[in-house]
Amino acid sequence: MARRTKVYEGKAKVLYEGPEPGTLVQYFKDDATAFNAEKRAVIDGKGVLNNRLSEFFMSGLNAIGVPTHFIRRINMREQLIRAVEIIPLEVVVRNVAAGSLSKRLGIEEGTALPRPIVEFYYKDDALGDPLVSEEHVIAFGWASQQDLDDMVQLALRVNDFLSGVMLGVGIKLVDFKIEIGRIWENDFQRLIIADEISPDSCRLWDMRTGEKLDKDVFRRDLGNLADAYTEVAKRLGVLPSNGKVMTRPTLIN
Amino acid sequence: MARRTKVYEGKAKVLYEGPEPGTLVQYFKDDATAFNAEKRAVIDGKGVLNNRLSEFFMSGLNAIGVPTHFIRRINMREQLIRAVEIIPLEVVVRNVAAGSLSKRLGIEEGTALPRPIVEFYYKDDALGDPLVSEEHVIAFGWASQQDLDDMVQLALRVNDFLSGVMLGVGIKLVDFKIEIGRIWENDFQRLIIADEISPDSCRLWDMRTGEKLDKDVFRRDLGNLADAYTEVAKRLGVLPSNGKVMTRPTLIN
Ligand SMILES: Nc1ncnc2c1ncn2[C@@H]1O[C@H](COP(=O)(O)OP(=O)(O)OP(=O)(O)O)[C@@H](O)[C@H]1O
Ligand SMILES: Nc1ncnc2c1ncn2[C@@H]1O[C@H](COP(=O)(O)OP(=O)(O)OP(=O)(O)O)[C@@H](O)[C@H]1O
Ligand SMILES: [Mg+2]
Ligand SMILES: [Mg+2]
Repeated sequence: MARRTKVYEGKAKVLYEGPEPGTLVQYFKDDATAFNAEKRAVIDGKGVLNNRLSEFFMSGLNAIGVPTHFIRRINMREQLIRAVEIIPLEVVVRNVAAGSLSKRLGIEEGTALPRPIVEFYYKDDALGDPLVSEEHVIAFGWASQQDLDDMVQLALRVNDFLSGVMLGVGIKLVDFKIEIGRIWENDFQRLIIADEISPDSCRLWDMRTGEKLDKDVFRRDLGNLADAYTEVAKRLGVLPSNGKVMTRPTLIN
Repeated sequence: MARRTKVYEGKAKVLYEGPEPGTLVQYFKDDATAFNAEKRAVIDGKGVLNNRLSEFFMSGLNAIGVPTHFIRRINMREQLIRAVEIIPLEVVVRNVAAGSLSKRLGIEEGTALPRPIVEFYYKDDALGDPLVSEEHVIAFGWASQQDLDDMVQLALRVNDFLSGVMLGVGIKLVDFKIEIGRIWENDFQRLIIADEISPDSCRLWDMRTGEKLDKDVFRRDLGNLADAYTEVAKRLGVLPSNGKVMTRPTLIN
């Protein structure tokens, strides 16, 4: 295979041009960042785990009719995805108070919310991804009211699905973040789930012990991040129960 | 008059029991605070000016059918108001980017917004009055969806009216904050404008010079606050053009 064109390199992933128009190759790195990249580390095996887990969640969503960018996994660290125009919003769904919600609104971590709460954050690292309300989104043209309504519906369906998946393996889905993008099909716009769904973008608490199995392990120095993600992957049957992952990227050039 | 019962003393005002059930006396102090009361000062005459100006705006709103708590002015520093159950939200309407909007979203101060933006902040000094979206308001039961819709409508009517008033005297209404409360009439709830409308709760820029005529003069040390408020009051014909205000409170006990 010829040397590919890099389209974008982010903190956790690299995007390359895909084999066909409208596709991209998404490469999962081992880099972990938190607090707007103030804290950084390389976590051996994280990219492999997240590639597998994002494949697992996205293909599950595709199967129940929630459209995602996922086409197929290529190798240990890469998957083929549909290129979208990312809407510059992080869409967060929360079932239990934690993180910034607890801090901003003074609600103790672990408090069950009276209903799932959907939040939008403006994707801008320089501004620290500030919370915005629908008013800001519409006034600044980041998305239309119709887009917002569709995004809330998509986000709540993802929440239903992911909550179920996690419940099945003894994990509480506390919250998660998704990104959503636009694709055009015969001049019609559709919104689909993009980016990744993985323990990097969820809060996952063991139902019995309360143990954190997500990126908070890294943010708050609670132990080994790859071990936590491996536990999630093992419970979901995504990895053999010995939890062995190949940590060296497959060379595909 | 007998000694009155104090109901609440805030940073800028005191509430006393009113002469009839369902009424309160609102006393305007000279105290100025900013940045969640980290910065404080006593500004001679501010209370007198704000009492007059809030009377002027509230009675104007009453006259065009936007219901407010204002009943009548009692003296230089006091007015009679309807007691309401305050909804714990600060409702902000913005026409031009300034203050926290500029900072949070990286929009230069003075940029005209594509449309008026209505924001809600959770009234909680300990949390620094955080921005919230409608999702939070509803999930935590601070107001219903119907309340929110009514509040947006009220806030936009206040914006239309105040923008007009200010335009008439060469002042740009950049943004303002209101509080809204519930009253019950024959078992029906109604929402009315409460608290105050004054240069303490608005951003007002002279249209010709850009000079600030509001609390930013105090927040940013731009000059004498009472002079700025006096200028607004004079232009509106609320004070004689010599701008004399009686700065000693009338004793009413
Ligand atoms: N299907 C897709 N089509 C186009 N871009 C995508 C798609 N899925 C994800 N992206 C974008 O690819 C990038 C993924 O890289 P990564 O998550 O490492 O970025 P990041 O450092 O978090 O930066 P960003 O703030 O842009 O997310 C993100 O910008 C994401 O929005
Ligand atoms: N019509 C009304 N009925 C009942 N309460 C009112 C009414 N109008 C205003 N208030 C309340 O009276 C208080 C006014 O005092 P002030 O503005 O000085 O308080 P503050 O220090 O700003 O504190 P707060 O954070 O409560 O506003 C506020 O709590 C306000 O919500
Ligand atoms: Mg990202
Ligand atoms: Mg107040």
